[in-house]
Formats: sequence, structure tokens, C-alpha cells
Amino acid sequence: MPNDSGALTPRAEDFPRWYQEVVAGAEMAENGPVRGTMVIRPWGFGIWELLQGELDRRIKEAGAENAYFPLFIPESFLRLEASHVEGFSPETWVVTHGGGRPLEEPVIVRPTSETVINHFFAKWIQSHRDLPLLMNQWSNVVRWEMRTRLFLRTSEFLWQEGHTAHATAREATDYALRILRDTYLDTMEQVMCVPTLTGYKTERERFAGAVRTWTCEAMMGDGKALQLGTSHELGQNFAKAFGIQFSDEEGNLQYVYQTSWGASTRLIGGLIMVHGDDFGLRLPPDLAPAQVVVMVVRADEATGPAAARIAGDLKAAGLRVRIDDQTGTSFGRRAIDWERKGVPVRVEIGPRDLAEDKAVVVVRHDRSKTQVQLAGLVPAVTEALGDTARALHAEAQAFRNARMTTVATLDEAIEAGSAGFGIVPWSEVGDPGEDRLAEAGITVRCLQRPDGTLAEDGAEGEPLVAVVGKSY
Amino acid sequence: MPNDSGALTPRAEDFPRWYQEVVAGAEMAENGPVRGTMVIRPWGFGIWELLQGELDRRIKEAGAENAYFPLFIPESFLRLEASHVEGFSPETWVVTHGGGRPLEEPVIVRPTSETVINHFFAKWIQSHRDLPLLMNQWSNVVRWEMRTRLFLRTSEFLWQEGHTAHATAREATDYALRILRDTYLDTMEQVMCVPTLTGYKTERERFAGAVRTWTCEAMMGDGKALQLGTSHELGQNFAKAFGIQFSDEEGNLQYVYQTSWGASTRLIGGLIMVHGDDFGLRLPPDLAPAQVVVMVVRADEATGPAAARIAGDLKAAGLRVRIDDQTGTSFGRRAIDWERKGVPVRVEIGPRDLAEDKAVVVVRHDRSKTQVQLAGLVPAVTEALGDTARALHAEAQAFRNARMTTVATLDEAIEAGSAGFGIVPWSEVGDPGEDRLAEAGITVRCLQRPDGTLAEDGAEGEPLVAVVGKSY
Repeated sequence: MPNDSGALTPRAEDFPRWYQEVVAGAEMAENGPVRGTMVIRPWGFGIWELLQGELDRRIKEAGAENAYFPLFIPESFLRLEASHVEGFSPETWVVTHGGGRPLEEPVIVRPTSETVINHFFAKWIQSHRDLPLLMNQWSNVVRWEMRTRLFLRTSEFLWQEGHTAHATAREATDYALRILRDTYLDTMEQVMCVPTLTGYKTERERFAGAVRTWTCEAMMGDGKALQLGTSHELGQNFAKAFGIQFSDEEGNLQYVYQTSWGASTRLIGGLIMVHGDDFGLRLPPDLAPAQVVVMVVRADEATGPAAARIAGDLKAAGLRVRIDDQTGTSFGRRAIDWERKGVPVRVEIGPRDLAEDKAVVVVRHDRSKTQVQLAGLVPAVTEALGDTARALHAEAQAFRNARMTTVATLDEAIEAGSAGFGIVPWSEVGDPGEDRLAEAGITVRCLQRPDGTLAEDGAEGEPLVAVVGKSY
Repeated sequence: MPNDSGALTPRAEDFPRWYQEVVAGAEMAENGPVRGTMVIRPWGFGIWELLQGELDRRIKEAGAENAYFPLFIPESFLRLEASHVEGFSPETWVVTHGGGRPLEEPVIVRPTSETVINHFFAKWIQSHRDLPLLMNQWSNVVRWEMRTRLFLRTSEFLWQEGHTAHATAREATDYALRILRDTYLDTMEQVMCVPTLTGYKTERERFAGAVRTWTCEAMMGDGKALQLGTSHELGQNFAKAFGIQFSDEEGNLQYVYQTSWGASTRLIGGLIMVHGDDFGLRLPPDLAPAQVVVMVVRADEATGPAAARIAGDLKAAGLRVRIDDQTGTSFGRRAIDWERKGVPVRVEIGPRDLAEDKAVVVVRHDRSKTQVQLAGLVPAVTEALGDTARALHAEAQAFRNARMTTVATLDEAIEAGSAGFGIVPWSEVGDPGEDRLAEAGITVRCLQRPDGTLAEDGAEGEPLVAVVGKSY
């Protein structure tokens, strides 16, 4: 825990401890009473609501409709898809009692919803006219976790999971990639301002039950990788396990091809670890519950009303604005708190500034201070917000690129992957190479073309590179 | 299940069966695989998303911030508030295993979150400066239910639960009433178009742990009552159980006064039962995922593009619009499906209408059909939507008022309450009267002033009336 008035532990000194202090100091979240669970406080949840809105809009643009499937899944459902049960069984939380009595069949609390959703897809899909079926759900899921960390790995987390069914493998691949690019990558790059790599997972890193897992990977402030979102091609695995068939235009019964894709509250952990600095969180403007806080430096007859006027002007310009007139608390304390919370711009108004028709604009990302004429305040703040988005992205990209090394051999990849990302020909790694990497605590984050683009058709013969690194 | 091409069971013939058929026929929801759980399909969930948006905006206007608390609650937490454990223990679902092993302490899956939220309120509240603390959460909750019915009573449901802490009893009462009026009643009357009674619950109908429960009650199409939302004053019950104290301005430690309030997916059940007719659902325009469907009667070169143009014009006017050009399915079948889903307005475009620069506008609430010049289509549709909202409310109000009888004695109240609502002086009922009512399957829905207004200060001496009826 950070000392209330003291500084945070520097990022360079102890990154995990710094992370914890930012989460606590910005009042984003804390541990729940049950092992590994999390309370998301209003500041953290406000960020999640904005992120949810951005993702939800893109999901709807991709044609998927929201629905809601039950939290409780019969234990027997999980067993229907062989690799799925292997992947998820050790992680489940099991309800054995209800209404004061033992249940006839134990139910699991959903770790993911492939099984229950596909049970219903089998009912709803009869004909090629029912395809594609594109659904998404926003929900909580739970997984038994040994070591948890707020936002990054918690027993319960919030997410969206999309599930689709298509007539052909090609359509399923295209849709999985559409979600990867237009929903996930676009949100990460444009909204979160996080430079993001894309590619697909090796067989051992693949989702339990998938034939191909596409992934978005970003470098955190300690050089480690965080998987931000995944989009899976499930092939016909679940279709065969759950009997999801349609009659094609010739009247023949065919199994559907499917996708599933998810992104979670883990994204907030990524946001902190990419953009945070020694003073706390730094929020991209699109995800800031307050983009501007108008601070009354000292209370007097003129300053309060002036702050309200200024806040009104900023709101009228479409910005999310708060007023901080809690002058019972010291100005320094309040400024530190807003800085920790990562509010992109502070407008500080005191009697002396006001006498000159001015205010001080403090920009969070570089901590710059400028005295600005009140008449020019709205454009100055708007410009500072645009600069913030660009600067956060550029800074993260420069950091990542400096720690991303293209190498030729597995040994070099292990060295590069220990401090950042190594990029090595996949032909140098392969399955035995993944064992060697694992010994060094490194994994293949994704496979991609040497120029960094997606290998869309996933042609096995194409020469690909592996991006390797340590990961959360 | 309704026969696909056949009509629904008439409402007057078998109301429960009609209800089930509407839920299925409009593709709103179906039963989940685990006892009493529910799958909310896109049409049902689309209605919920709109309702959520309306409630959420009002909750934020009332100053409450969204947060998220864990699904899992230690069993011991529930025992801390005596009447709360008595109320909820028989209803819990209990997790006993996680990660393949028995848990040290079983955890319950939240039936409501008073206990876990107040555990944290005790940490966060120290001083009068931390008050009021106003929080809301959107989440799933589960309760063991013996007899379930989609939307109305399900083992798992979606809801919002608000929790607040205040320095004085007066403030808590005022806030509970503010939510009742400005959030719930306003949404029910203005958005759902449901005429709604308000008042407070008798002691036996009160929430487990509350000192006063304010309620919104509406009459369904079979004369029964449905509780649409409740706002509880918790007094200092939870504050004392969880040790939630603040130092007041004089530095003395005081217990806070609290409220909690919730509304759920049950509202959708109410919407169906108030507005539905023998042809299916009738949606108020503010809650219709599609307010207008533009139907291509028969496909030809001109009709498709004309439908797209018309849909574009309607969208530009701010309406939610869908195009139905599935001419592979018969026009009659499609019209019946949209009618069942309750879409307020259909615009039907066929080659003959188009040759005259016209379209047919079908209004769902009274099933009226009018041929309209294309040039006047947008205002005609907009007007029809406004009419729909007014007509649905007026119709429901007339229905309710015809079945709401003011009576003088308990016997008369039992008669009136069997077919609708009886309004009887509370002095004629009292605790023994509630026993008599219960024998007839009737309960006191709420207490209010004789003129129907809220008895805000809840002065025990004031002469109040009881609204009695059968309920869901």
C-alpha cells in the first residue's frame, strides 16, 4: 500500500509492487473476501464501462447480437468436447447444494460458455437460412486460480464472449479475423492507445477446443507480454460434440463451422501496465471517466462560480468533466489523487489566476503546466486531450520497439525474450524449441509473417516468425 | 408452444399459457438446462439493454456510481444480519468445491449483495466527508426457486442493486424515495408505459433486513399484481451488523443509515403481461429493439432499393429500423412474426404501392393499416410511435382502474382482491387481517394514503389504505 501522502514505489524498482499501489491508490479495485475475487470500485468500473461501450459498438457493427446464457452449467456438458474438458475441468468451481439440499447433478459455475451456448445453437440452427448465427454475451465467469492479481488474473472476471456459427470454414475464418481486427485491434490501438501485435497461437498455447487461436499481444512496462484478446476458430469440434447441423441449399445435412472470441477486465490491467508512470495511472482520453477535472485552488466568492462556468463550457464541448471544490482537503493532496487516477487534464483555478482571467492547465501525460487565457481554455484542453492520446501511443510504441529484437537462433530468442520480445523464425523453434523456451519461463506469444502482418490463410508452408517473451 | 403458423392461445382462455407462448413466439427467452435458469435470446436481451440504459441514466442522475462486487460470498457473511440470514438462507446455491478440492469454507452464490457490499462500506467510510456513499451494481443473482416462470421468477436473474449510506435517517428516507420516484416510477410510467402504484410494504412483506420497503406495483392483464421494483430503508441494521461508522463533525462515532434498491429482468415479464394481446407482444417504442420494420412484400428490382431508401430516411430521423427482405419466407408468416415480437410499426412496401409512391403503415397496438404517401412517411411513423406510447398507457390504466375497487371491509377486500385490486382502510386489515387475506391467496401489495399518494414520512398514526390483490 502506498503511503497516503508519500510517493508510489518507483516502477523501475519493483514493478509488481508499483502495479498494486497504482490499483489501490487510484481506488480502482481491491481483493474480495473469497479467494482471488475482486471488487471493482467506481473509478475502475467507470473505465470498464467506457471500454465496454467501445467494444460493444464494434461487436454490433460486426453484426453480432447480445444475449444472455445461464451462469450454471450441468457438469456433464463440460465433458462433451474432449480437449475442452481437459482444459477447464481443473479450474472449475462446483455448486453441490441448492435450497438446503444436495443437488442431483452438481453444476459448474461457468468458466466460459461454449458448452451451454452450443447446446442451444443445436436447437436454433436447422437450415442454411439460420446462418450465420452471430451472438455475444457480456457476463461474469469464474476460474479456480492459484495465484491471482487484480484485473490480470482473478477467480471471477467480467468479459464478453462471442459465439458464431457459419456454413463454411472460410466464412468462420473471415469472421474470426474480422473480430480480431475491427473489434479488438481497433479498440486496443485507437481507444486504449496500446500498440498491439497480432498473430496466431502455436498448438500448445491454443484455446482448449479450438483449431486456431488468433491473439492480440502487447508489451507491458516491464517488458513482459499480456494477451489482450483472442479470437478462436473452433472448426467443427463443438458442432460435432453438440450436434449442430444445418441442411444446405441442396438439402444435405452439414456441421457448422464456429468461432468464439473474448476480451475481459484484464484489459484494464494492461492499460495500467502500458501507460502508468511513477505518479500513477495515465488514462487515454477515450477511457477516462473524467477527462478533465476543474480544481478550485482556494475557496472564495469568485473562484467557485468561475470553476462551475468553466466546467460548463468544457461539458458543452462534449467532454467528461468533474469539479473538485473540496477545499477542506489540501490542494497538494487533491492534485496527487487526481494524478494517481490518471485524469488526462487538470484545470486549476485560483484567485490570482482568475484576477488575470487565466487558469493553469496541467497535462497528465508529461506533467506540463501552462497558464492559459480563459477565453482559449476549451481549445487548449481539447488539444491537450488529442496530444495525450498520440503521446501515450507513441511512448508505448517506442518502449516496445526498443525491446523487440529480431534474432536468428533459439538461444538468441531466449535472451531477447527474457527482457522483451524476441522475433525468431518459427522453423528455429518448433515443438522442441517450445520446451526449451518454457524452461526459461518464455512462451511463443504468436506466429506472424516476418513483416508483422497476419498469416491469414495460416498456410502451414509459409515461413513464419515466432514472437517470444515472458508473459502474464 | 404455439403452433408455428397457428394463433396463440387467447389471453382470456389461459393466461399463463398465453404468456409462455408469447415468450417463446417472440423468441425472447427459454429455459436453461439447470433447474429454473433462463436463456435470454437477442430479442429479449435487446429490450433489457434499452431498459437498462433508461434505468442507468436515472441512477447516475441520482448521483450513484456503478461498481462491481464479487459473485461469491463467504457463507459466514450471510449470518451477520439476523433477519437477512433467515430470509435468504433457504434460497441459496452453495459452492463447496473449487480446483478439484473441497473448499475450506463453503461460499454462496450471491442472492443479493448487502453483506459483501457492507463489508466494504465499513472499510471505505470513516468520516462524515465520505457520506453519502452512493453505489449501484448491475449483475446476476441466484436464488433457489421451487416454481419458476421465465422472466417472472427464475433461479438466476439480471438486475441492478443500489446500496447507499447516509449520515441521517432523514437523508436515507429521502434518497430511498428519490430512487422510487425519479428512477423506478418514472421509468415504469414514461418508458414502459405501465401505470404504477407506489407505497410501502407491511412488516410481513418487507425485505429481510429492512425497516421500510417502498414498492412499485402494477396490475397485469389477468388482474394480478406484479412488484416491479423496491427501494428499502435499512435503518442501522446492516451498519450495526457490519460496523459501518463515521465520525461526525463533532468527532463522535455514529452508525450510518442505509438504503438498498433493485429492479430486475422481471420487468420484462411485466411488460409482456401488461401490454401483450392475443397476437403477441406490444412494445412501447422506447423499449423496442426495432421500432419500425420495413418489409419488402415481394422482391423485384425497384422494391428492395426503395425499402433501403425508406429505412435510411427513418434511421436519419433517429429511429431504430430493420429491413425485412426475406422474401424466401411468405409475407404472411413474416408479418405474424413481427407482430408477435411487438414491433410498434411495420412499413410494408410492394410493387403496387410503390407504383403509386405509397407504402402501407401498420400500427401494432391497434393493428390499423393506412396507405401513406412516401413523402409523408417519416412524420406518419413518428406520430404512430407517439400514439402507441400514449395508447398503451391509457389502455393499461383503463383496464386497471376498472378492476380496482375501493371497499370498506376485509370481506369486501378479499372479493375485490380476487379479481383485481381492493383498496381498503389499513385499520380494517392489520396483522390478523393479513392472515385472512393469505388464506384467500391475497397479500397487501402496499400501503398508501387514501388519495393514492405516498405516505412519505410513514407516520404510523396517519390513516392509510391497503392495496390488496393476488400477486406473482
